Amino acid sequence: MKSIPLLLMGCGGVGRQLLQHIVSCRSLHANQGVHLRVVGVCDSKSLVVASDVFTRELNDKFLVEVCRVKLNGLSLSKLADFDECLIYLNSESKRKVIDIAALLGKSTGLAFVDCSASSETTGVLNRVVDLGCCIVLANKKPLTSRLEDYDKLYSYPRRIRHESTVGAGLPVIASLNRILLSGDPVHRIIGSLSGTLGYVMSEVEGGKPLSEVVKTAKSLGFTEPDPRDDLSGMDVARKIESLYPDEMEPDVMSVEEFLATGIKLLDNDVEERVKKASLRGNVLRYVCVIEGSRCEVGIQELPKTSALGRLKGSDNVLEIYSRCYNEQPLVIQGAGAGNDTTAAGVLADILDIQDLFP
Amino acid sequence: MKSIPLLLMGCGGVGRQLLQHIVSCRSLHANQGVHLRVVGVCDSKSLVVASDVFTRELNDKFLVEVCRVKLNGLSLSKLADFDECLIYLNSESKRKVIDIAALLGKSTGLAFVDCSASSETTGVLNRVVDLGCCIVLANKKPLTSRLEDYDKLYSYPRRIRHESTVGAGLPVIASLNRILLSGDPVHRIIGSLSGTLGYVMSEVEGGKPLSEVVKTAKSLGFTEPDPRDDLSGMDVARKIESLYPDEMEPDVMSVEEFLATGIKLLDNDVEERVKKASLRGNVLRYVCVIEGSRCEVGIQELPKTSALGRLKGSDNVLEIYSRCYNEQPLVIQGAGAGNDTTAAGVLADILDIQDLFP
Repeated sequence: MKSIPLLLMGCGGVGRQLLQHIVSCRSLHANQGVHLRVVGVCDSKSLVVASDVFTRELNDKFLVEVCRVKLNGLSLSKLADFDECLIYLNSESKRKVIDIAALLGKSTGLAFVDCSASSETTGVLNRVVDLGCCIVLANKKPLTSRLEDYDKLYSYPRRIRHESTVGAGLPVIASLNRILLSGDPVHRIIGSLSGTLGYVMSEVEGGKPLSEVVKTAKSLGFTEPDPRDDLSGMDVARKIESLYPDEMEPDVMSVEEFLATGIKLLDNDVEERVKKASLRGNVLRYVCVIEGSRCEVGIQELPKTSALGRLKGSDNVLEIYSRCYNEQPLVIQGAGAGNDTTAAGVLADILDIQDLFP
Repeated sequence: MKSIPLLLMGCGGVGRQLLQHIVSCRSLHANQGVHLRVVGVCDSKSLVVASDVFTRELNDKFLVEVCRVKLNGLSLSKLADFDECLIYLNSESKRKVIDIAALLGKSTGLAFVDCSASSETTGVLNRVVDLGCCIVLANKKPLTSRLEDYDKLYSYPRRIRHESTVGAGLPVIASLNRILLSGDPVHRIIGSLSGTLGYVMSEVEGGKPLSEVVKTAKSLGFTEPDPRDDLSGMDVARKIESLYPDEMEPDVMSVEEFLATGIKLLDNDVEERVKKASLRGNVLRYVCVIEGSRCEVGIQELPKTSALGRLKGSDNVLEIYSRCYNEQPLVIQGAGAGNDTTAAGVLADILDIQDLFP
């Protein structure tokens, strides 16, 4: 049985769901000859580690307890009653994470899994790359802030996977990598790649106020913890067109205030834009186009009957044009948001790197 | 630089295209730290091997010459003039293939690539599995004849890839594997999975005779060497509905006779079925449905406006329903036939197993 040691950063919605998937897939993975050995879990403040990272693991009962504690909004430090693990707090937890990476990275290997939505993990990730760890990301931020961070994380291209940073669990990155590695040059990509914005755009079409739709999206786990990460367009690529004005920026207004009062001020404007588009037989879609060195992200009016216009709910669509997919593109479509499918994508990534473990 | 030794069986359209892709991707792959070392190439009669399979390779100039010879319909034995390689004929070639697998399989590893369309490779493949070789298939036959062959070839699931056996280079198998390994149970698959039959069905809609459409399809490389492999439905799954009658079966009629006279006898019948469907606003599509243990393959009349009805050319569509893709399926669509995309899928498979090589 091959054992893959794993350290999870972030146990919000996606991280919790990943732990649940790992536990419920035990026999499936055993049939494949693989065991995912969770040696540690951390949130923004604390780290919980197996008592011996070389031989022990946080067992399934404990992982379920982690999920329960985090679901109740508590800190991992509340788990202190269990005696099979060690708990580290604050700066000590960060040091210990690096220690574990150094111990396991080059001996047994270690899958470093980032399911947080934080840009603060970038520093740790940059360091563990050189310690021989593999990196699996659901967190987009480390790859989308500074190019030197991206390059650093991609130092060993076989040791990084990040399928769930685009279109949740949809096989977008895996498919693009296949195309590129087979020498088939991609010359154009067009898509609706934010499950959240896809959901929001198709729901406001039916006449629901923006504020209500965003709150529902958040409760369904379709948005980042701060929904403005989605609404600003930053979550798709570069900031081209934001759905909210400057005075509602995160440094001016809290998430709670934004959801309680800020977003309601946007309802009428969005309603009007939807109506105007509808009179022309169109719908609004938040679309991303990459062609050559050009990348555009923003709201486009598209015919109701087009592939993008027919999109419903949180579905994503991606069209890839290349030499092999020239006149007709390669199309990948499906749910592009939700903790279940995002965590499933992370789990598939972890299994995809299994051959790198001894 | 990681070196992946490779032995190619079959140098018809797909195999030739694969060799061309390998040669033209040299610098791309070098940038990724990978070199594909072609140690041998065989057709149904001969085997050409590098003079020392541990250290040498058939160089790019030689591989281009292989393509030229095969494009001209000649046997590999015509390559005897080159002195960096050894040539084996007939039964000796089969023995030598096993020898090479035994030599390289457990030392450097060997990717055994089957781009033939023959069921005769199954015996060799079954043997090299136990010799530590990896297997990459564009050839469907070894996986779709006897269940015990399938099980044998899947003895080591990480060591086999066969993306191009379904939908040419479309990321169908890779995506399905990701879904299944993440514990997301698939409960329904529906698709139009024969690029050939997709092309044939959408071309006869325009009023062209079946016989003409099939010949064009063959010349475009969309069909198996014997187009009846496609037309019988066998190429999709089980034989449910064949496009030709028993008296045109391969054991009764040669490929040449079928293309010259047999297939013309089917033109009128197909034309009539197309017209009848059209009067009802429908088109004919060759569709495969898998649900639970049920598998149906055959011609269905579908609305012109449905996703399957809107399919054009040799595009394939696959809809996968699972827990994560429940109300709305995961959809994968694109070119499902053609030597270029099929060979690209094989090449992506070879690179996908690179971590298994030392």
